[in-house]
Amino acid sequence: MMQRHILLMDGPDHKGLIYQVTRILFEHNQNIIRNDEYVSPSGYFFMRTEFDGEADVSELLYALQKELPIGLNLRINPRKKKDVVLFVTKEHHCLGELLIRYAFDELDATILAVISNYNTLQPLVGKFGIPFHFISHENKSREEHEEAILRTLDVYRPEFLVLAKYMRIITPEFVSHFPNRIINIHHSFLPAFIGANPYRQAYERGVKIIGATAHFVNNDLDEGPIIAQDVKAVNHSQTASDMATLGRDTEKAVLSKALKLVFNDRVFIHHNRTIIL
Amino acid sequence: MMQRHILLMDGPDHKGLIYQVTRILFEHNQNIIRNDEYVSPSGYFFMRTEFDGEADVSELLYALQKELPIGLNLRINPRKKKDVVLFVTKEHHCLGELLIRYAFDELDATILAVISNYNTLQPLVGKFGIPFHFISHENKSREEHEEAILRTLDVYRPEFLVLAKYMRIITPEFVSHFPNRIINIHHSFLPAFIGANPYRQAYERGVKIIGATAHFVNNDLDEGPIIAQDVKAVNHSQTASDMATLGRDTEKAVLSKALKLVFNDRVFIHHNRTIIL
Amino acid sequence: MMQRHILLMDGPDHKGLIYQVTRILFEHNQNIIRNDEYVSPSGYFFMRTEFDGEADVSELLYALQKELPIGLNLRINPRKKKDVVLFVTKEHHCLGELLIRYAFDELDATILAVISNYNTLQPLVGKFGIPFHFISHENKSREEHEEAILRTLDVYRPEFLVLAKYMRIITPEFVSHFPNRIINIHHSFLPAFIGANPYRQAYERGVKIIGATAHFVNNDLDEGPIIAQDVKAVNHSQTASDMATLGRDTEKAVLSKALKLVFNDRVFIHHNRTIIL
Amino acid sequence: MMQRHILLMDGPDHKGLIYQVTRILFEHNQNIIRNDEYVSPSGYFFMRTEFDGEADVSELLYALQKELPIGLNLRINPRKKKDVVLFVTKEHHCLGELLIRYAFDELDATILAVISNYNTLQPLVGKFGIPFHFISHENKSREEHEEAILRTLDVYRPEFLVLAKYMRIITPEFVSHFPNRIINIHHSFLPAFIGANPYRQAYERGVKIIGATAHFVNNDLDEGPIIAQDVKAVNHSQTASDMATLGRDTEKAVLSKALKLVFNDRVFIHHNRTIIL
Repeated sequence: MMQRHILLMDGPDHKGLIYQVTRILFEHNQNIIRNDEYVSPSGYFFMRTEFDGEADVSELLYALQKELPIGLNLRINPRKKKDVVLFVTKEHHCLGELLIRYAFDELDATILAVISNYNTLQPLVGKFGIPFHFISHENKSREEHEEAILRTLDVYRPEFLVLAKYMRIITPEFVSHFPNRIINIHHSFLPAFIGANPYRQAYERGVKIIGATAHFVNNDLDEGPIIAQDVKAVNHSQTASDMATLGRDTEKAVLSKALKLVFNDRVFIHHNRTIIL
Repeated sequence: MMQRHILLMDGPDHKGLIYQVTRILFEHNQNIIRNDEYVSPSGYFFMRTEFDGEADVSELLYALQKELPIGLNLRINPRKKKDVVLFVTKEHHCLGELLIRYAFDELDATILAVISNYNTLQPLVGKFGIPFHFISHENKSREEHEEAILRTLDVYRPEFLVLAKYMRIITPEFVSHFPNRIINIHHSFLPAFIGANPYRQAYERGVKIIGATAHFVNNDLDEGPIIAQDVKAVNHSQTASDMATLGRDTEKAVLSKALKLVFNDRVFIHHNRTIIL
Repeated sequence: MMQRHILLMDGPDHKGLIYQVTRILFEHNQNIIRNDEYVSPSGYFFMRTEFDGEADVSELLYALQKELPIGLNLRINPRKKKDVVLFVTKEHHCLGELLIRYAFDELDATILAVISNYNTLQPLVGKFGIPFHFISHENKSREEHEEAILRTLDVYRPEFLVLAKYMRIITPEFVSHFPNRIINIHHSFLPAFIGANPYRQAYERGVKIIGATAHFVNNDLDEGPIIAQDVKAVNHSQTASDMATLGRDTEKAVLSKALKLVFNDRVFIHHNRTIIL
Repeated sequence: MMQRHILLMDGPDHKGLIYQVTRILFEHNQNIIRNDEYVSPSGYFFMRTEFDGEADVSELLYALQKELPIGLNLRINPRKKKDVVLFVTKEHHCLGELLIRYAFDELDATILAVISNYNTLQPLVGKFGIPFHFISHENKSREEHEEAILRTLDVYRPEFLVLAKYMRIITPEFVSHFPNRIINIHHSFLPAFIGANPYRQAYERGVKIIGATAHFVNNDLDEGPIIAQDVKAVNHSQTASDMATLGRDTEKAVLSKALKLVFNDRVFIHHNRTIIL
């Protein structure tokens, strides 16, 4: 049966690599719909190939692995929605955006559940008929809290976790369960501000631009590979609160954009950078 | 001798096309540095391949033509600066931008000469040691004026003509000498305004955005394939003259961006659209 | 009792106008919190003054009218949420955005009801507990349809109508009931495209930017005073459908921005332009 | 004789301040052309008033000082071009932009001279007939170098110094000679990168946005009040060198914008922020 698949490949570049891959797809009777490659200046190769065909995928994968140089990472994904769990705290802006998109089938993902350390957003999630898990962090050590979350996640087995304004630090131990599978959104400033109440600091510094960054989470929170960024202009007449409002609008737009890229298998991660094909 | 070349290819899509092209390059010992393809929804194929190697280019081109399906357009360009002639009238903003870039070798082009129907900008061009041809349109029919220009161009034989705020309508006859080789820049508005003094009209209509469009010139002036566009925000407190100033800044930035794409052989034209690889 | 009010004033400029207004506010013991003026190049004066105080508003208005030159338009609004009715057809993107903002009290307005010529969006509106009026246009003349709508509006008596992707032409007769009180959102392109399926036309023309315009509705639909505009970059690889998706995101952001300005009494209308203070 | 002046005023807010100022201008027969005020949330007042009239400026200033509450800063500037000296090192992009604008009288300033610690840009400056002072830092202590510069500046007595990519740290001692009168431009990133070769760092971090910030220089270089900022989108396929090119274009646009604001007396400085009226 004809189906759309996506081949993702990365590794050290070799002369003739595109030729070899396209030859094997051709010989397996697959029709390339879209092909994107990138070779980094240091000679690392990335390729994303969308193709249609009737061949057996595992057979095709076997042929690729056998015939291509060793050292390449190869995956073939069927083109389908990703299973995700959202994490939130009290802010609704990113959650609301994702729920509306999901309700009208525009998210390229299935929201299996929403997990929160507060019950503030339960009514909103309830409107959309999605399970809401209130897992308070109170009276729990960080480890106990994360274990409770992991037990819940075990039921859903999501492919991606989306931190849609989840205001808890997560441990490297927790991250290690979902390598390159946790996506976070946070505000961004020029220059950067560290510590509490960054919009207040941005206001006091008189910045003319505020922004948002969506990124994968690795052990350094806020330091994983960047997926998408955008900014909006501000001026002196906007209060710290106005800036926070505009910042939230930017966050939700940037998170949506980043998720679309990730859920469409367009994002590679290499040495703490993303390559988006 | 090793040299960088760019293969440009477009035509109806066929299964295995990327495979065939990459195979032939591989067999001719060429190393692909960067490869970009695009297949339109209607099944038209575009490919741009940068490669390094020592093989004979005409031999390679012959092999491609012989082995690939008929109906494909194939070109192989050496990676080198384009020869261009600039056209201006009285406004200096685009010209100044291009001259400064050229003076510091950032234009990816050689400015052979500047042609103008006024002598207003002769002093500026003179500072940079570039020939300036003042070819007045006064007391000449449009045909006589264009013939005088063509005679001058005949000396320089440019690959591209850049209309850097050249405020004369050019005839289809003139355009036919330089198919897809004339680039123009003009202001753009939402909504569009036709007729004299568009900034005045934009002001009176209270637009919140003004922009610029760089495009190839075909028989419908201002209607050829779009290469680049950008906009800037404006508000009620800006006069028509303020808007014109901001519009000029946008024009020069958009023209520079478009020229960089064209001069790097990144722009295909198909059915009045550009495909930028 | 201390309350925040907004004085809105426009008319032909006179020397000393700001002085007279601020004097009267001072003598009535009002404290100016924020004051913005603008004088157009043709000598028309606009002023928006936010002030706090305990004085009697009608007395203050009387004093202003008596002491200022005749020919000025004067209004004093209490700072409060506007009552609005939303109009939709089948597209959910603007509606969803407004409902989420409303649910979290971020809209500066009370949504009294949603009116639609289809029942497609009834389930979404129902989640938020807002009355939904399905008033089909089928088997009705345009006049009959608008009369049915007017009867429904008569119950709610809204200050503003928001056409949040309402895909019906409305008559000058209907507009005359709500002068400068109907706000519309539509997509915008450089250049403009007229007729059916504009995203298809934009795709075929290869535009590099798509945008949205929010504006008041007057007798020329899509031609009333512009309140807000924004654009997003696109490229050849995006299909007409991708462009439509991005266009919808832009529409919802621009509509939200425009409504915030209108609902905060920041928008003057003069000769088909908006002055935003 | 009728002349345009600009009154700049800032200080603690008082009830009736706008009223008092506009009254005094009215009594001195001055006609307000444009008036902008801002009161910060903490109650600090800023006002910029453009006015035309025939009265004696020093008399007017005396009246304002006598009648307004003490503690206000008051200045009245004639509307005229500022005298500036530019500082550069080896990069031409900002300098070229300013010279072209200056050559066509679009800078709102007179460039008295260009000072550089290298002679690289002397030929470019020479084309425009402006004095170029090559003051090498080699074999000089920082103090000796700055003293040599100060001696040169003493000849020109500029109102503003523009660091148009001047790659030397300047001392607090030097800055103290020109309080709030030195303007700098530098690249900006989300997140910020400290140390050598920031474009390389931005590339390695995979940022999706690069920007530029124009600011006044105080004792913390790169930390003075921000005047203007802007950003451009980048992606993985752009090398560190591509990013640097785009960054330079952004720098020159942001610096031009900032200078226009400063040279038009539109920028107040308060507690390390700018208020732009």
